[in-house]
Amino acid sequence: MPELRKDPIIDRWVIISVDRAKRPLPEKVGTQEEDIEFCPFCEGNERYAPNEIFSISKIHREKDTPGWDVRVVPNKFPALKVEGDLNKRGIGLYDAMNGIGAHEVIIETPRHNLTMSKMTIEHIKNILITYRERIRDLKNDVRLEYVLVFKNHGIEAGATLSHSHSQLIALPIIPKRVKEEMIGAKKYFDYRDRCIYCDIIAQELYQEDRIIISEKNFIVLSPFAPRASFETWIIPKNHKSHFINISEEELDSLANVLLEILRRMDVALSNPPFNFILHTSGLKNLDNEYYHWHIEIMPKLTKIAGFEWGSGFYINPTPPEEAAKFLKNAGI
Amino acid sequence: MPELRKDPIIDRWVIISVDRAKRPLPEKVGTQEEDIEFCPFCEGNERYAPNEIFSISKIHREKDTPGWDVRVVPNKFPALKVEGDLNKRGIGLYDAMNGIGAHEVIIETPRHNLTMSKMTIEHIKNILITYRERIRDLKNDVRLEYVLVFKNHGIEAGATLSHSHSQLIALPIIPKRVKEEMIGAKKYFDYRDRCIYCDIIAQELYQEDRIIISEKNFIVLSPFAPRASFETWIIPKNHKSHFINISEEELDSLANVLLEILRRMDVALSNPPFNFILHTSGLKNLDNEYYHWHIEIMPKLTKIAGFEWGSGFYINPTPPEEAAKFLKNAGI
Repeated sequence: MPELRKDPIIDRWVIISVDRAKRPLPEKVGTQEEDIEFCPFCEGNERYAPNEIFSISKIHREKDTPGWDVRVVPNKFPALKVEGDLNKRGIGLYDAMNGIGAHEVIIETPRHNLTMSKMTIEHIKNILITYRERIRDLKNDVRLEYVLVFKNHGIEAGATLSHSHSQLIALPIIPKRVKEEMIGAKKYFDYRDRCIYCDIIAQELYQEDRIIISEKNFIVLSPFAPRASFETWIIPKNHKSHFINISEEELDSLANVLLEILRRMDVALSNPPFNFILHTSGLKNLDNEYYHWHIEIMPKLTKIAGFEWGSGFYINPTPPEEAAKFLKNAGI
Repeated sequence: MPELRKDPIIDRWVIISVDRAKRPLPEKVGTQEEDIEFCPFCEGNERYAPNEIFSISKIHREKDTPGWDVRVVPNKFPALKVEGDLNKRGIGLYDAMNGIGAHEVIIETPRHNLTMSKMTIEHIKNILITYRERIRDLKNDVRLEYVLVFKNHGIEAGATLSHSHSQLIALPIIPKRVKEEMIGAKKYFDYRDRCIYCDIIAQELYQEDRIIISEKNFIVLSPFAPRASFETWIIPKNHKSHFINISEEELDSLANVLLEILRRMDVALSNPPFNFILHTSGLKNLDNEYYHWHIEIMPKLTKIAGFEWGSGFYINPTPPEEAAKFLKNAGI
């Protein structure tokens, strides 16, 4: 059983995932040889992946057979397990609980070499609907507090299989970074009675120089204080705390701007490895006035030196105003 | 002039270091070809590095000439500049200030291929004395709040030159991660009237299973909730908030345990890339009862997937109890 442990000094939980490595030396993630002859995510190989949890397909089909557009399966090497109870406990001054949760893989396409930036808007919309439906389902489990949806694209960004996929980790705690945003946003709201993200949108639309895309429902921008070169945020213009309340029209818009920004990055940054993470409110506080869901995209162009994530202090060689201009002017 | 900018939602400052890259696309750090024929850190090449700020040598010598054991020079591409004033300012809801500070390189040895784990205890002590003396000097600049000392060893850990060196960044703010530790430690102290690090030492000595080295003045351990495989902390047994108050006897001990743990890692983990960071109190709060200086060492064995540093949520495949046992049993 994996264990969740909390650092006693700062509010950070980690998963100690003993099942993922049988020996104390970890696998060098991303350096292993991938079997290109055989991919468990490809159409026709459904039986080599764990049993399907959810799918979207245009035709009527049996589970775990071809014909799907998007397909969700449990992670074969899950960081967390669904069965059991949390058993929260203290060990002297330390805190721990059982690693209860879910770890799922969203197989974004049946085609092995199709990357997200080459998909159709309709297909990306189906991926976004899949995120929403999986979160809606997992919300029914009262032990869970948060669903973390993210995508690693490229070996440098931590992807171990090249077939395009995202991941979802459902957690009995709220991840540190998101919790910090909630606390910061709440503090701002308590003082001004306004959402800080809504205020950011207003200021950015006025200043203009960090905006990459602005359309009816979404703004895509280089944030004022980015940690790394070309960090990019997608923020809905309409205040909503949780992604699961996204409207049909917003889904169309989001698929559209996500595709556009990924295409712009492909052209401007030569198909960079990247991560994106959905930041949204907790499952037990879906609607509130202070938090505003958004997506953070981080192309991996430079190595993050250890001191940066060990100190929380970042050196970024690219001013966001220049990054925005560069992406905006990329001919796509 | 580089600029310090603060994320408006969470308390994180970043340096937007425009001088480091002239074009919006950053250099791929660590992938550039190093000139192995010529190293500006080698003895005899002193004139190719910026002018010396400090040195330790056994002989009488002129500045910027051979004969030194440890030598400190300004970083040729500094992330911060010494000249000017802070000019703290608001830009709508954002905060910024000038990138005032210092960025220095501690050249740890005149010999090109000597890594820290192969040095003598006396030599490592001189490096530690250099850290202390540079911090003591920088403390006189009232604009500065913190001195961040760190080492990147190996390309995977962000080192761009292979000649053994550490770096020091003096800052007008306290880095986020350290500040969080201070706040967490203060909260614990306010409730219990005890230092949390002192309590951790007591519990670890009692539990024993995460201790790698324990001697008179220092404890070396795998922390209870490590972010990554083989994360290791070195903590002084005697409560002190700031490293600059380290005693002569503690310097000997620290050089000794630092060498031992690096040698153990070399054997057990096959000469891994690593980072270490000195965590210490702020320059304007050198002595207090709640914060306890220490060193965090992070071998880079797996890629940190982007979602981990983007969410603040870590998956660690190696239980610290197994890591400690493995390092303790490594034959050195």
